[in-house]
Amino acid sequence: MTQSYFALGFGIGTRNSRDEWLEVFFPRPLLNPDQQTLDAIAECGHDTSTPLHELSSENLNAISSALKSTDAEQAEIVGKLATSNQPKVLVILASDSPPNSVPEGYLKLHLISHRLVKPHGTDLTGLFGVLPNVAWTNAGAIAVDELAEAQLEARLRGDTLEVSCVDKFPKMTNYIVPDGVRIAHTARVRLGAYLGEGTTIMHEGFVNFNAGTDGPGMIEGRISAGVVVGSGSDVGGGASIMGTLSGGGNLVNSLGTGCLIGANGGTGIPLGDNCTIEAGLYITAGTKVVLLDEHGHEIEQVAARELAGQSNLLFRRHSLTGAVQCLRNKSAIELNDELHAHN
Amino acid sequence: MTQSYFALGFGIGTRNSRDEWLEVFFPRPLLNPDQQTLDAIAECGHDTSTPLHELSSENLNAISSALKSTDAEQAEIVGKLATSNQPKVLVILASDSPPNSVPEGYLKLHLISHRLVKPHGTDLTGLFGVLPNVAWTNAGAIAVDELAEAQLEARLRGDTLEVSCVDKFPKMTNYIVPDGVRIAHTARVRLGAYLGEGTTIMHEGFVNFNAGTDGPGMIEGRISAGVVVGSGSDVGGGASIMGTLSGGGNLVNSLGTGCLIGANGGTGIPLGDNCTIEAGLYITAGTKVVLLDEHGHEIEQVAARELAGQSNLLFRRHSLTGAVQCLRNKSAIELNDELHAHN
Amino acid sequence: MTQSYFALGFGIGTRNSRDEWLEVFFPRPLLNPDQQTLDAIAECGHDTSTPLHELSSENLNAISSALKSTDAEQAEIVGKLATSNQPKVLVILASDSPPNSVPEGYLKLHLISHRLVKPHGTDLTGLFGVLPNVAWTNAGAIAVDELAEAQLEARLRGDTLEVSCVDKFPKMTNYIVPDGVRIAHTARVRLGAYLGEGTTIMHEGFVNFNAGTDGPGMIEGRISAGVVVGSGSDVGGGASIMGTLSGGGNLVNSLGTGCLIGANGGTGIPLGDNCTIEAGLYITAGTKVVLLDEHGHEIEQVAARELAGQSNLLFRRHSLTGAVQCLRNKSAIELNDELHAHN
Repeated sequence: MTQSYFALGFGIGTRNSRDEWLEVFFPRPLLNPDQQTLDAIAECGHDTSTPLHELSSENLNAISSALKSTDAEQAEIVGKLATSNQPKVLVILASDSPPNSVPEGYLKLHLISHRLVKPHGTDLTGLFGVLPNVAWTNAGAIAVDELAEAQLEARLRGDTLEVSCVDKFPKMTNYIVPDGVRIAHTARVRLGAYLGEGTTIMHEGFVNFNAGTDGPGMIEGRISAGVVVGSGSDVGGGASIMGTLSGGGNLVNSLGTGCLIGANGGTGIPLGDNCTIEAGLYITAGTKVVLLDEHGHEIEQVAARELAGQSNLLFRRHSLTGAVQCLRNKSAIELNDELHAHN
Repeated sequence: MTQSYFALGFGIGTRNSRDEWLEVFFPRPLLNPDQQTLDAIAECGHDTSTPLHELSSENLNAISSALKSTDAEQAEIVGKLATSNQPKVLVILASDSPPNSVPEGYLKLHLISHRLVKPHGTDLTGLFGVLPNVAWTNAGAIAVDELAEAQLEARLRGDTLEVSCVDKFPKMTNYIVPDGVRIAHTARVRLGAYLGEGTTIMHEGFVNFNAGTDGPGMIEGRISAGVVVGSGSDVGGGASIMGTLSGGGNLVNSLGTGCLIGANGGTGIPLGDNCTIEAGLYITAGTKVVLLDEHGHEIEQVAARELAGQSNLLFRRHSLTGAVQCLRNKSAIELNDELHAHN
Repeated sequence: MTQSYFALGFGIGTRNSRDEWLEVFFPRPLLNPDQQTLDAIAECGHDTSTPLHELSSENLNAISSALKSTDAEQAEIVGKLATSNQPKVLVILASDSPPNSVPEGYLKLHLISHRLVKPHGTDLTGLFGVLPNVAWTNAGAIAVDELAEAQLEARLRGDTLEVSCVDKFPKMTNYIVPDGVRIAHTARVRLGAYLGEGTTIMHEGFVNFNAGTDGPGMIEGRISAGVVVGSGSDVGGGASIMGTLSGGGNLVNSLGTGCLIGANGGTGIPLGDNCTIEAGLYITAGTKVVLLDEHGHEIEQVAARELAGQSNLLFRRHSLTGAVQCLRNKSAIELNDELHAHN
């Protein structure tokens, strides 16, 4: 076999009373699993061209033994899964096709949060349709149509069922906390977020799935689905980054490196490197902007969408005239030109 | 008897060490309970003109039996309550008068969140004075003056008492999750919120008590107490809706159908249908607005309060002049005129 | 001995598997402990010039007995700590020097949240370096490098390890809820926040460590590290207060008494008393502001930093010209002058 598989994961999860999957936790997902791992699984009698394998403890013990010589760490985890009487599943994704099941969807979200693939690095087409709406509680995941009964039963016992989230996406930190990050309030980072090393998400920060930061960076505002923020960039308190070019549809927004969006500011256009938007200013694609030269003289008036992705821009609203202005940082531009000249 | 009662609920709750109610959970509150239910309760020896009835398991078993033929579902719940040694209470509200006790206040909040009455649909006068400030923890509701002791005791055992809220109002989802909603972060929806079917409250969304959405809608901003957002309306990330006409006092704000408040925007006036406020713009009642005709020519300058409740308006701040403008969508206005002509 | 000690606390906490402190809970920290307390500790054989004392139950019982006659309440708490097999520690800070250990850092944060010292009232130099990054879970504090294992073990048992925060600072309410406050969503108030009596922190409110409110006040926006908000001041929904004069570096921001920052507004300068910033307006130090006299005539144009700390100012952006204006409230100024004349 020479085929390179996309991904693989041994998971443990939750099903509703109709035995439908609600969620799956993959302690050690693999991107492009090596051939030995696939062979070991095949030798234990599992068809590696099939994506979903609901495994017994016996199955897992056999696979654990088969993996011992080639991947001791995975073997240990698989052996531990074998000790649990919770539902266990093996997901094998031969190729990166749209997820067809809850376990497949969860494996893909894990791949991103484990930093194995970047946002947009795996096909999530149709994910919303695949994932069920789940009540996330202190007693684990509960099907929403089984919640009221569980709440009453808890009350009868004198307990409280704490329902922290009712959503298709759980919080990331209950599945994986990647190295070198702080997340002051974890409810605001969905599984499927990608947080680069050195990222701090403050209490007002938010990161959707299939979005994130290259890190390091200080995130005190909202990173919408699909958006990636470059290293060394700060998103100020309450700042907003629209998911796609505002009014534009398909162009996904992003921030380059060394950017700053001030508190309560926002952007509806992608920014290049070293861009700043002042606190309280929201730039949308249609915002008409006065471009100023290094002497503060007007060059021209353009719609912000024409500046999409450009570097070394500073956006502000002149506080006497109300005009939104864009200054180019001359030294930065020269540096940039030089860099381009050596590309 | 021909009197129509306002509401009724069998509850299970928490009391402090002085036997004062802290909170009550009503699994199945009733609006306008039918006469059979009231008769069954009366037959069991309870005076239905009295609002509060602290019930023993024996009382509940008797009522459960009496209800079996007329309301099997309620009978089952009452029977379950009988099995618990937690404090149980029956609240009967003959009329919709201001709440006089914690159980009455909680029943009214349940009525709204169960979608049995709309916001402003029940008299909540004096509710703040009736409800105690409570520490909401993973061990249930704890009186704030008994919290420090409970925290120390938990620590001695090696446990943590997780205090998630110190407030008069608990989170809604620990009492009821209505059908067809998602609430990404439940701490931001108070009991007493009304979420219409199809409502999604994102992480930055917030809904106060006696406020809510007709649904469907995407709520990523803040719905203040008293505010109702019409169906098909979106409240953008971090957007703010003041509770009453800003500076105006009594007029409660609301959004009609098909509205959009852009991210980090806000309104201090009620909006009619199909209105838009651009991202980052906050309209207050006193904001002077340039009204533009369909050709972009100025019609007049008005204070935003004069536009309160009107439909088909688009508010923006011109990014070159700083002037707040209001455009009327001509086709929408014609449609609106036609609708009015057929009223 | 005549030396006045700075602070003292008996704590119970958590250590990682390498016996390093992760966090400490001090149920009753003392500022300037009296000589009898220090003597009692010394008599039990502990050198009060040493800051850290890891105590056995035997040690604690002895100290509890020695304290009984001079501080019965502390004696009782120390006696309770003796009953626990969790790690116990006594911290004695002879002087207010920078914290050198996790227990010292936590004692200082407790001093602020217990209202024993005000923000900036204790030396926190180097605190970030002293405190470890911790995973705060429903099973208590867990070292981040031991979290993945704990998460897997919980899953094998069918439990969920709820990871609510991954940060150097825990939420305040799991350590202390001061009297007379409401905190609608506790995840947004860090240990080390100072909340004056009568403070309400709504769901969108946030208070960092070494910051807070004199109370009473309604906080629906963000109080950055170092900032103090005076009594009777309201911070509107989503409003932002920068930690230091924007662009200025060292001058810490603050709000005086009776101020209001409107929803989604913000300030990068300190405000005096009775100042208002309208909803949606962000004032930074560099904002050029048109000063108006009582007739609405322009006096001059100044940078907002020149107005730092002044009282009786109202900031707004004129909605037709886009100019940021500052009005002085004449009657308030006269009142203020009169107050000053009688100082």
